[in-house]
Amino acid sequence: MPPSQTEQSLNLAWVLLGAFLVMFMQLGFALVETGFTRAKNALNTMAMNLIIYPVGVIGFWLVGYALMFGGVSEWPSLGGPAAPAHEVALRVGGHAFGIFGASKFALVSVAHDPAALAMFLFAAVFMDTAATIPTGAMAERWKFSAFLVYGFFMSAILYPLYGNWVWGAGWLSSLGLLGLGHGHVDFAGSTVVHMTGGVTALAGALVLGPRVGKFRRDGTILGLPGHNLPFAVAGTLILAFGWFGFNAGSTLSASDPRIAGIAVNTMLASAGGGLAALLYIWGTAHKPDIAMACNGLLGGLVAITAPCAFVAPAAAVLIGVVAGLLTAVGVIGLERRLRIDDPVGAIAVHGISGAWGALSLGLFADGAYGVGWNGVAGPVRGLLFGDAGQLGAQCIGVLANVAFVFPVAWGFFKLVDRAIGMRVPAEVEWSGLDSLEMGSDAYPRG
Amino acid sequence: MPPSQTEQSLNLAWVLLGAFLVMFMQLGFALVETGFTRAKNALNTMAMNLIIYPVGVIGFWLVGYALMFGGVSEWPSLGGPAAPAHEVALRVGGHAFGIFGASKFALVSVAHDPAALAMFLFAAVFMDTAATIPTGAMAERWKFSAFLVYGFFMSAILYPLYGNWVWGAGWLSSLGLLGLGHGHVDFAGSTVVHMTGGVTALAGALVLGPRVGKFRRDGTILGLPGHNLPFAVAGTLILAFGWFGFNAGSTLSASDPRIAGIAVNTMLASAGGGLAALLYIWGTAHKPDIAMACNGLLGGLVAITAPCAFVAPAAAVLIGVVAGLLTAVGVIGLERRLRIDDPVGAIAVHGISGAWGALSLGLFADGAYGVGWNGVAGPVRGLLFGDAGQLGAQCIGVLANVAFVFPVAWGFFKLVDRAIGMRVPAEVEWSGLDSLEMGSDAYPRG
Amino acid sequence: MPPSQTEQSLNLAWVLLGAFLVMFMQLGFALVETGFTRAKNALNTMAMNLIIYPVGVIGFWLVGYALMFGGVSEWPSLGGPAAPAHEVALRVGGHAFGIFGASKFALVSVAHDPAALAMFLFAAVFMDTAATIPTGAMAERWKFSAFLVYGFFMSAILYPLYGNWVWGAGWLSSLGLLGLGHGHVDFAGSTVVHMTGGVTALAGALVLGPRVGKFRRDGTILGLPGHNLPFAVAGTLILAFGWFGFNAGSTLSASDPRIAGIAVNTMLASAGGGLAALLYIWGTAHKPDIAMACNGLLGGLVAITAPCAFVAPAAAVLIGVVAGLLTAVGVIGLERRLRIDDPVGAIAVHGISGAWGALSLGLFADGAYGVGWNGVAGPVRGLLFGDAGQLGAQCIGVLANVAFVFPVAWGFFKLVDRAIGMRVPAEVEWSGLDSLEMGSDAYPRG
Repeated sequence: MPPSQTEQSLNLAWVLLGAFLVMFMQLGFALVETGFTRAKNALNTMAMNLIIYPVGVIGFWLVGYALMFGGVSEWPSLGGPAAPAHEVALRVGGHAFGIFGASKFALVSVAHDPAALAMFLFAAVFMDTAATIPTGAMAERWKFSAFLVYGFFMSAILYPLYGNWVWGAGWLSSLGLLGLGHGHVDFAGSTVVHMTGGVTALAGALVLGPRVGKFRRDGTILGLPGHNLPFAVAGTLILAFGWFGFNAGSTLSASDPRIAGIAVNTMLASAGGGLAALLYIWGTAHKPDIAMACNGLLGGLVAITAPCAFVAPAAAVLIGVVAGLLTAVGVIGLERRLRIDDPVGAIAVHGISGAWGALSLGLFADGAYGVGWNGVAGPVRGLLFGDAGQLGAQCIGVLANVAFVFPVAWGFFKLVDRAIGMRVPAEVEWSGLDSLEMGSDAYPRG
Repeated sequence: MPPSQTEQSLNLAWVLLGAFLVMFMQLGFALVETGFTRAKNALNTMAMNLIIYPVGVIGFWLVGYALMFGGVSEWPSLGGPAAPAHEVALRVGGHAFGIFGASKFALVSVAHDPAALAMFLFAAVFMDTAATIPTGAMAERWKFSAFLVYGFFMSAILYPLYGNWVWGAGWLSSLGLLGLGHGHVDFAGSTVVHMTGGVTALAGALVLGPRVGKFRRDGTILGLPGHNLPFAVAGTLILAFGWFGFNAGSTLSASDPRIAGIAVNTMLASAGGGLAALLYIWGTAHKPDIAMACNGLLGGLVAITAPCAFVAPAAAVLIGVVAGLLTAVGVIGLERRLRIDDPVGAIAVHGISGAWGALSLGLFADGAYGVGWNGVAGPVRGLLFGDAGQLGAQCIGVLANVAFVFPVAWGFFKLVDRAIGMRVPAEVEWSGLDSLEMGSDAYPRG
Repeated sequence: MPPSQTEQSLNLAWVLLGAFLVMFMQLGFALVETGFTRAKNALNTMAMNLIIYPVGVIGFWLVGYALMFGGVSEWPSLGGPAAPAHEVALRVGGHAFGIFGASKFALVSVAHDPAALAMFLFAAVFMDTAATIPTGAMAERWKFSAFLVYGFFMSAILYPLYGNWVWGAGWLSSLGLLGLGHGHVDFAGSTVVHMTGGVTALAGALVLGPRVGKFRRDGTILGLPGHNLPFAVAGTLILAFGWFGFNAGSTLSASDPRIAGIAVNTMLASAGGGLAALLYIWGTAHKPDIAMACNGLLGGLVAITAPCAFVAPAAAVLIGVVAGLLTAVGVIGLERRLRIDDPVGAIAVHGISGAWGALSLGLFADGAYGVGWNGVAGPVRGLLFGDAGQLGAQCIGVLANVAFVFPVAWGFFKLVDRAIGMRVPAEVEWSGLDSLEMGSDAYPRG
C-alpha cells in the first residue's frame, strides 16, 4: 500500500531532518580531527573539514548523484512520480548487474521533484561523511590544492561508484540472484560510507607517508599528541548526536516504526564501543585514555551502521563492544606493527569497524526486519539465524570495497602526486601548515 | 480516541527527535563544566561528561529502565500492543503505591516493540542528564574509577527509583488518591531529573570536600576561576537548544498542540532567568558576570521544566525570573555561607531551581492543561487557580526527593570512599587530574 | 482545502523544529564572531551573543511580536481558530498599506493558541538572528550597557517594523496592488532578517568608529586578526546546519513538498558561495584564506534565503557563487575603500548578500512556486521568466530597508551615545573589554 499524502509529508520531513543531522556531523569530524592534530596545523585541519563540504556538494551535484542514484526511478516512501532513470549494467547469465547510474546530472531532470531532491540532500551529506574521513588520516602534511582535487574526485566519482553497487541498483545489491541472501546489505553505510572513507584514508596515508619525526630511525615512535583533547571529545559527542540521523534517517520513512529500534541500537553500540575501548586501554596501558575511548565509541557507531535495523538490542551492545576492541587494537596495530601514520585513527575507526559492521549483520541479523530487501523474499537473516548466504554477501561486499576503493584511491593519489604534488615541503611541515600553506595561524596573538 | 497510524508515526518521530536533542545536551554540560574548571583538569572534566553517557546507557539498559518503567505496559500516543509489566507496590488502605518496576530488563521482552524502545531512548537521555549533573559539582578532585562506579549506580538504581515514583506508576504519582491534586506532577523533570542530579551533587560535594585551596584558614575564599568562559557560554547555548527537546518532547506526542506553548514557555523562562541573574549580579557586584548569567539562564530552564505545559507565557517569565534570582543567590550562598565547593554551580542550578520549578507548578498551573493527569479528573491547577492540594503534592515530591536521594547518595559515596577512595591524592589535585589521573594533558604542546 | 488535523500537527512540529534549529544558530554567530575577535575581548563577544537572546526574547514578547504580526489573524497551515488581529495602515487610493500591527502584546490574547505560540517561537529566533548580527560588526569597542539598550530597541521596535511590512500584512507585501509582481517577496529573510541586521551593523559601526589602531594615520590598515579561527570555522558549520531550519522551516508546513527543494537550494548556494570566495581570494591574495571562505559560504546562505523556494538548483548555485564573490569584494572594499571597521565582515555578509538575495529572486524565480503569494494570482516569476514587476518590487524592498533601517538605527545609536555613551574608554579597549568591562578574562589562568 503506498503511503498516504500525509505519510509522504512526514517521511519527507524525516529524511530532511536526518540529512540536517548528518550534515552537522561535519563539525564533529572537524573537532575530532583538529583536536587530535597539533596547534600549528589546526587551521588547515579545520579548513579541510569546512571546504570538503562545498567541494563535495558541487561534485556530487554535477556528477556524483547521477552515478550513484541515476539508476533509481523512484523512492516509494517519499511519493511523487517515477522519474526517468538509467543504470549502465553488465548482463551475466540473463541477469543485469549494475555498474553506474547515468541520469539526473546536475539535478536538471528532477529540479522540482521533491523525492529526488530530498534524496539528493540525504545522499550528499553521506558522501560528505565519506569524503571527510581521509582528511583525518592524511592531516598535517597534505597539500591544500591536492586536497581540493581529491574532494572533487571523491564526491563525483569514487564514492558514488561503490555506493551505486550497494544502494543504487548496482551489482552488490543483486547478489541475491546468485543465492547469496538478500545481496550485500548495508543499512546506513558501514561499507558504503565508512569503509570507503577508511580505505581511501589508508591509500592516502600510504601515498603521503608518515609525518616528519613520527617514526624514528631507531625504531621508536613519537606520540605527536593532538593539541586540544576537549575539541576531540566535543566532536565525538557531536558525531554521536548526528549519527541518530545517519541511521534512523536511513529508513527514508518515519512511518516505519523500526526507527525506534534503530536509534536504540545506535545508542547501545556506541556505549558498548566506548566502554570496551576505555576498559581495554585502561587495563593494558594503565590510564583511562580518553582519545581511545572516543575512537572506540565512534567504532561502535561505525559498526552498527550496517546492521542497526536488523539486530536486537543485546546484539547491538555486543557489536559495539567488539568494534570498540577492534578499533583500539587496530589503532595501535596500524601504528606499531604496520607503521602507518594516521593522526586521528580514522583507518581503524572507519575501515576496520566498518568491515566488522557489515560482517556482523551477516552474523546477527535476526529476521525481524527486511522483508523483500533488494527484491529477495523473506526477512534478512544472518548466519546465527540460519542464512549463511547472507554472510557470504557481506564478505563479498567488504572484499569488493577493498579491492575497488584501495587501488583506485591509491592510483588517484599517485597521479595527483605526479601532477601537482601531494605533500607540503618539509619546511612547511616543520613550521606548520597554517602559517605557510593557509596564510594564517589558527590562534593568532592579539 | 487512539491516535491514527500516521499520528503514531508522527509521535514516534517526535519522541526520537526529542531524545536526540536531549542527548546533545551532553555536549552542553561538557562545555559548561569544562569551561568553569581549570585547564589542568579540562580533560578529566570532558572525560566524565563523555563517559557518563556509555556507562549510564549500559546501566540503564541492563537494570535502570526496568526499575523505572517496568511497571508501565503501554504508551498510548506511540501505539503498539501493551507489553507485560510489573510494578512492585505497597498496599495501603486499599490503594497500591508503587515502589519500583520489575520487567523489561535489558530490553529483552521488548526487543522489537517500537513504543517501548522509543521510550527507552527518551528515558535514557533523561537519565544521562541527571547523571552528568554531579560531575560538575564534584569536578577537579573526583577519582575517575570512583566516578565510573557512580555512573552505574546512578543510572541503574538511584535515578530510576525516584523516577519510577513520579513517572513510572510509583507512589508520588498516586497522591491524588489521598486528595492531593493530581499527585506530584513534574512534566519534564524539574524534580525527577534536575533535583535528583542536584541533590546527588550536593551529597557528592560534601563527601569529597572542597578543592585544595578553595577555603582558606583565614576565612577567605579563592575564586579558582574556570579556564575557558567561551566554552561555558557555548555550553549554555547548547543546553538551551537541547532543552526544547527535553520539554516539548515530553508530551510524547506531536499530535498534542500543547507542544507550541511548552516550547514558548521554555524560551521565555530561560530569558527571564538569564536576564534576572545578569541584572542582579550587575547590580550587586558591579560587573555583568556572564558566568552568573549562564547559570541564571539554566536555572530558568530547570525551573520551567516541571510546569512548562501547565502555565501561561507570562507565568513562565515570572518563574524564570525567580529561578534566575534563586540561582544567583544560591550559588553565592552555598559558597559563602555553607562553604560548599561546587565549581560550576550545579547544586544551585539544578537542585534549588529544580525545587522551585516543582513548587511553581503548584502555584501557577492555570487549569488549561492536564485533564485526567495521573488518573485524576479535571485539569491540573495550582494554588492561585484554586487547588491547594496540588501545591501539597508538589511539596511532598520535593521533600521526598531530598529525603530519599540525599541519604542514599551520601551513603553510596561514603561506601565507595571506603572501598576504593573517592578523591584523588593531593599531589594529583595540585598537578591536575589530567596528567596524573587521565595520562594526558587536555592541551598538549606540539 | 484546510490541512487535516494530523497535517496540522506535522506542520506545527515542523515549525517548532525549525525554530529550534534557528535558535541554535546563536551559537554559530557566537563562535564566528568570537573567533574573529581578539582574546582580550572574547568573553565580551560571547556575552553579547548570549545575552542578546534573553534580552531580545523579552523585548519581542512584550512588544515586538505585536508590532510585527499583530495584524495577522491566523496561520492556515498550523490550524486553530482565527485570533483577533489589528494592523495600523495607511489608506492610499482605496488600498490599505499596513505600517505596524497592534495586537497580541505579551502574548496575553493568544496565551493558549498553539498556532500563534509556534509562530512567536519561530519569529523570535528570526528576530534573534537579526539582532545578533550587529554585535559582530560592533565588537571589541561597544559598551555593554549600550548594547543591552540596543537589544531591547532592536527586538521590540526596529526589527518588527520592517518585518511587518514584508511578512505581517504590511505595505511592502501589498505592492502587487500597484502591479509590482507579488509585492516584495522574501521567503525566509534576506531583507527582513539579514539586511536589517547588516544595515543596523553598518550604522552602528559608523557611530562607534573603528577600533583603536585599525586605521593608521599613514594610511596603512592593521589586520587585528581574530584569536581563534577554529571557533570561526565551527561557527560557520553550525550556521550552515541551523540555516536548514531557517529556510525549510519558513514554509510553516511540512505538508508542502517544496521543503526538499528549499533545503537543497540552501545547501547548493552555501557551497557555491564558499567555493567562489575561496577561489577568488586564493587567486588574488595567493593564500586559501579560510576566514574569507567562511564569509563566502555564509554570504551564499544569506543570499539564497529570499529566493530558496522559487528557484531551480542550478540557479541556487549561481546565486551562491555571486554572493560569495560579492561578500569577498565587499569585505575588502568596506575596509580598504570605505575604511569601515567591521571585525567579522557582518556588513558584507548580511547587508550586501542580503540585498543580492532579494534581487536574485526578482531575476531567477522560475514560476514553479508561489501561486497566490501575497494574494496575487499566479506563481512568482522573476525578470528572466517574464515578470519585470517582481524585480521592481524586490528593488523597492531593498531600498526601503536601507532608507528606513539605516537612519533609524543611526539616530538610535547617536541618541544612546549622548545618553550613556556607546563606546568603552580607550584604556578599556587597549586592555580588552573582558577584564575591565565584563570583570573577568575569557581564559583565566589557573
